[in-house]
Amino acid sequence: MAMLTRRTMLATGAALAAAPAFAKPSPIDHIKAIHQKLVCLDTHLDTPANFARPGWDIMERHTPEEFSQVDYPRMVEGGLDGGFFAIYTPQGPLTPDGMMAARDAALLRAAEIREMVAKNGAHFELAFKPGDAARIAAKGKRIVYQSIENSYPLGTDVTLLRSFYALGVRLAGPIHFKDNQLGDSATDKSRTWKGLSLMGHDWLALCNELGIVPDASHSSDDVFDQMVAGSKTPILLSHSGCRAVHDHPRNIDDARLKKLADTGGCIQINSLSAYLIDTPDNPEREKAFEAIYAKLRGLSDMTPADAKKAMAQVGLAIKALSAKYPQPRATFEDYMTHMLHALKLVGPEHVGVGADWDGGGGVTGMEDCASNWKITARLIKEGYREDDLQKIWGGNALRVLKAADDARAKPAAAAAPPGGGGE
Amino acid sequence: MAMLTRRTMLATGAALAAAPAFAKPSPIDHIKAIHQKLVCLDTHLDTPANFARPGWDIMERHTPEEFSQVDYPRMVEGGLDGGFFAIYTPQGPLTPDGMMAARDAALLRAAEIREMVAKNGAHFELAFKPGDAARIAAKGKRIVYQSIENSYPLGTDVTLLRSFYALGVRLAGPIHFKDNQLGDSATDKSRTWKGLSLMGHDWLALCNELGIVPDASHSSDDVFDQMVAGSKTPILLSHSGCRAVHDHPRNIDDARLKKLADTGGCIQINSLSAYLIDTPDNPEREKAFEAIYAKLRGLSDMTPADAKKAMAQVGLAIKALSAKYPQPRATFEDYMTHMLHALKLVGPEHVGVGADWDGGGGVTGMEDCASNWKITARLIKEGYREDDLQKIWGGNALRVLKAADDARAKPAAAAAPPGGGGE
Repeated sequence: MAMLTRRTMLATGAALAAAPAFAKPSPIDHIKAIHQKLVCLDTHLDTPANFARPGWDIMERHTPEEFSQVDYPRMVEGGLDGGFFAIYTPQGPLTPDGMMAARDAALLRAAEIREMVAKNGAHFELAFKPGDAARIAAKGKRIVYQSIENSYPLGTDVTLLRSFYALGVRLAGPIHFKDNQLGDSATDKSRTWKGLSLMGHDWLALCNELGIVPDASHSSDDVFDQMVAGSKTPILLSHSGCRAVHDHPRNIDDARLKKLADTGGCIQINSLSAYLIDTPDNPEREKAFEAIYAKLRGLSDMTPADAKKAMAQVGLAIKALSAKYPQPRATFEDYMTHMLHALKLVGPEHVGVGADWDGGGGVTGMEDCASNWKITARLIKEGYREDDLQKIWGGNALRVLKAADDARAKPAAAAAPPGGGGE
Repeated sequence: MAMLTRRTMLATGAALAAAPAFAKPSPIDHIKAIHQKLVCLDTHLDTPANFARPGWDIMERHTPEEFSQVDYPRMVEGGLDGGFFAIYTPQGPLTPDGMMAARDAALLRAAEIREMVAKNGAHFELAFKPGDAARIAAKGKRIVYQSIENSYPLGTDVTLLRSFYALGVRLAGPIHFKDNQLGDSATDKSRTWKGLSLMGHDWLALCNELGIVPDASHSSDDVFDQMVAGSKTPILLSHSGCRAVHDHPRNIDDARLKKLADTGGCIQINSLSAYLIDTPDNPEREKAFEAIYAKLRGLSDMTPADAKKAMAQVGLAIKALSAKYPQPRATFEDYMTHMLHALKLVGPEHVGVGADWDGGGGVTGMEDCASNWKITARLIKEGYREDDLQKIWGGNALRVLKAADDARAKPAAAAAPPGGGGE
């Protein structure tokens, strides 16, 4: 938490740019030391999907080959202090059965996040308020904010968002890969609602009322525009890229990025390869991969041994498919090209990190959160100072969270306070 | 888990009845040893109300004076292997705001139960299936089934019961002290619905579909009758007494108790003093106590030190009120009178223990779960054998749970399985 002086930082940056061989400690160790002093948050961690995997333990070290990019040992190594752990729900059918199944699973996932923290209370702590990040980091613990990726589980009852708030959710996105009851997806050409649905507008108003940060990643441009126009507090793009660098609907164009910044919001750069660089469309490949990934779901009913076996089989199948359908893979420099573009366009007050670990993120040269320090190294090389780095690595996201929390409606006297005196 | 032979048991029973001074080890030690071999469950533990109390730790020993009757040290001492930990919600107004607040709090309470178990995984384990009790007890851990006391938090959407099932709930009662949207309360003279409401009937059908045991404690006689008639599986009275012993609406009359037994159900005897013996109505006293108990709610926002202070103040206030409004208090023998009446009427297959610890239970001579072994001692004195004791101490409740689980509708293929491959 202690800050280097800017003078030291600038000197360091200059030294690093020249990469002097005589430096002691080594430049990399020096950068890592600077990086470790920052409180680093990632605003989109899909890691909770692993929590119900039998035998999976966040306190043990895993590898990307085991479909894992975040665990405690690698968070420590990569200087990742925490972030927003997502309650992610794949988009299912817009039917009562589909919505109920999604709701039940999302509420269970929320409980699983809290269970992970309860189980590992010496190393993790739940965060609810903007100030909790610094408080928890000062104790040497990892910071667990909660978020929703896809509000489909709310079904037709937007007020269920209140329950998720009560459980700790402070960041929420309305939509995922396909249009749903709340609005249109960036990756769905139907344009069902031409933006947010009526329920989507209610959802946005309720986010503001509760103090939840609205997250426009995965939303269509129309939805983004309506969220920026309609929200009383700044919008976050929890894991997105720049369309000016690579034209993909999951990325944002420069005009909208400026609008986002002008309204106090922030883009957190995603490391999902297919959004960073041009990769040929291959529906056959996608279908084959989707079938493989589907096998990863429902592991929770297996024994640890069976789950391990199933995951190994999926690993082999993915290796085979990757050989059958070769595809270019983005590099760390591609990732940084998106980040540096955003930084140049809107400045270090409006850019951050949302690498989509355990949700598709990862580029050659930055395969998991253990490599997070490389972003710091690259930014120092570009001349960014420590106060900029702290903003990028979480300060901006916390500023957006603070704006949401400050605007939170004063809670009414609870109608039915729980606890005590039950008979 | 090892069972004594019946011969040993009978000999023990006879010896105890004579209470021979030469017995080695002492009769009490011998009874405690028998008791400890049983897998003992209590079907109504209000202990989760304590989980959010700042500084309260289930692994530490507390006292009834600190408003605590169940914790790990006393469960071990009293041979209580576990039971149904209640998600209890006080009845609030039947308004959208009231229902939403209750829903949010109940979902949080469910998460808190799972957090307690996650935090203390070496000593507690979540139970979902009827067979889990024996499996968990064999590991020397405490058994945590989950239940709902008052389904008011479902609001107007009965399908929310599915979410609670997903979180682990396997026993649910529709109603508490007052009539609600599901039906009529035993302690509300309004008789709003003359039994279950339309939603109450849907609720019952959904209990059966999911494999949740319907709990008729707190329900009016009309509701009880309609539950027994309408449920496809046996009903539990998770914490009730016998009206033939003491005429109170929270107790059940002999005809209904026989009906309960005839349909495979079970009564679990409550230790709440005011239901066991005749105590004069004193609305002024009740009002004064309710005001005091209200102070115990909302402790969760306090610091541990402030919470401790607040609880101490409440303790003093209760002492003063008890002196100002003296009231007769039931004894352990009063408790046993209810239990023995039920045993005589319907036999050991249809009686169990639901002492309402941390929810109002406790009698002179049995102030917390550490005294649970006394029930076993008294039953041995009455000639009950070990196989009877095991039924009474949980076997019957598990039989009712098994009936519910066996009748559970085959789950449809999940519409939207969560986890894996989120982007």
